[in-house]
Amino acid sequence: MRTPVASTNVVRMEAGTATTADDLLVTEEPLELRLGHGALDARKEFRLSVTMRTPGNDAELALGFLFTEGIITDPAQVVRSAYCEDVKEEERGNVIRVELHPDARLDAGKWQRNFYTTSSCGVCGKSSIEAVHAQCSIPIEPWGAIDAKQITLLPDRMRASQTVFKHTGGIHAAALFNRNGELLLLREDVGRHNAVDKVVGAMLSAQLESSNLMLLVSGRAGFELVQKCVVAGIPLMASVGAPSSLSVRLAQDSGLTLIGFLRGERFNIYSGTLGSPSQ
Amino acid sequence: MRTPVASTNVVRMEAGTATTADDLLVTEEPLELRLGHGALDARKEFRLSVTMRTPGNDAELALGFLFTEGIITDPAQVVRSAYCEDVKEEERGNVIRVELHPDARLDAGKWQRNFYTTSSCGVCGKSSIEAVHAQCSIPIEPWGAIDAKQITLLPDRMRASQTVFKHTGGIHAAALFNRNGELLLLREDVGRHNAVDKVVGAMLSAQLESSNLMLLVSGRAGFELVQKCVVAGIPLMASVGAPSSLSVRLAQDSGLTLIGFLRGERFNIYSGTLGSPSQ
Repeated sequence: MRTPVASTNVVRMEAGTATTADDLLVTEEPLELRLGHGALDARKEFRLSVTMRTPGNDAELALGFLFTEGIITDPAQVVRSAYCEDVKEEERGNVIRVELHPDARLDAGKWQRNFYTTSSCGVCGKSSIEAVHAQCSIPIEPWGAIDAKQITLLPDRMRASQTVFKHTGGIHAAALFNRNGELLLLREDVGRHNAVDKVVGAMLSAQLESSNLMLLVSGRAGFELVQKCVVAGIPLMASVGAPSSLSVRLAQDSGLTLIGFLRGERFNIYSGTLGSPSQ
Repeated sequence: MRTPVASTNVVRMEAGTATTADDLLVTEEPLELRLGHGALDARKEFRLSVTMRTPGNDAELALGFLFTEGIITDPAQVVRSAYCEDVKEEERGNVIRVELHPDARLDAGKWQRNFYTTSSCGVCGKSSIEAVHAQCSIPIEPWGAIDAKQITLLPDRMRASQTVFKHTGGIHAAALFNRNGELLLLREDVGRHNAVDKVVGAMLSAQLESSNLMLLVSGRAGFELVQKCVVAGIPLMASVGAPSSLSVRLAQDSGLTLIGFLRGERFNIYSGTLGSPSQ
């Protein structure tokens, strides 16, 4: 069993004074994702990707990744997932195999990490956004009016549940909240995209209705994260940090409510409408 | 000419009061990197990768990426680089072609973004570190004793030069300093790995001696960034945020001095030795 934190010795400097201390680091290890499918070659296995991630919730990570990258369009296409046993001792727990249903149609063109790289879709903001829309199996149902008071409460609720961050300070978080602002799911990872994939994978596993959820991320709202939110059919995304130009365009073109710089009682609305203040 | 910032309208909430304002966003657009080489097919071109980046310093980004990913081992292998003209109007400035010298040996196995995914090198921390060492053409010369006072001055010097961050708050920075703590090069990008690739590309273009430089990054010191620092032959890396378990192992195994949580007068030394305080 691999753990999400690892200990190390560190020299800690503070105001010119050095002390030696034990310190906890967030664990970062590669995870190889293998797809099994009847339509594949004799070994019936395809090595899809390797990502550097924090161990834990790896089946959710795989499920969320396959869904938000458009490789599967329905979580029911995954028959089972398990760590591979036919690997070297030191690779145990770092190689996961996802078996897809024989009826799942596989599009080889989507098996590249940057699937918006194909010549047919071009290399510009517009084509990047079109590529995301092409892979959406769940259309976004607009969130409706933003409850400003509720939104400002979310970051503290997320941080209160971030166990790995508390110990290491070195990890991203992604959390899903319901319409009452209650935290339903939280996942942490050294990679921000992995944190989102894990929480989306957990959402799919729990068969939660995505249209009733808000996604909060601890860092910036880059294109890749907003893309994952849109493909997952989650209608509201908030980030503690800044969005990018292309994130805002994608949100506006997709009907996604996008909030940035959510800190204390402050936030910016880049896409979506504000409700009248509740008294 | 694409610009690094873009304007948008935003609704700004503060303590329950909404105001409408103009806001600046960091620009995020895809960049396709094409390699030209005599040994390639009839079109003599290979589409290597697409990355979401902030426009600007794209030739440096391409050079730094090719070098830190081990696709080239000497900047002299690049004969020229230029934006492609044979693209659609909206793709102008988003497609760059790097012409390699005919004598440059190309290893097709390295043309995948995650080149440590091959079965021969395994999927574990140890194999990830070995894969980095295998691609190092510049061995690290140990930095020597850390000057604590000098180190604590670096973040303010970097922030003072971060023009895009000042306007958008949404961008990563990577900076190179000399042994006197003077800032030589600073690059910003929406992607942290791009910021490092740009500054390494600029270092190579300027033919600076990497063994005399310190790299400072604005975020966390994940494996991918430490890998780039090691391959670039830069002997000291400092980050404002936390390192990961694998970053620390890579630093220790490579002779890289690694500093984390560099904030105000505080920092942690994960690898390397502290000098006696200068009076």
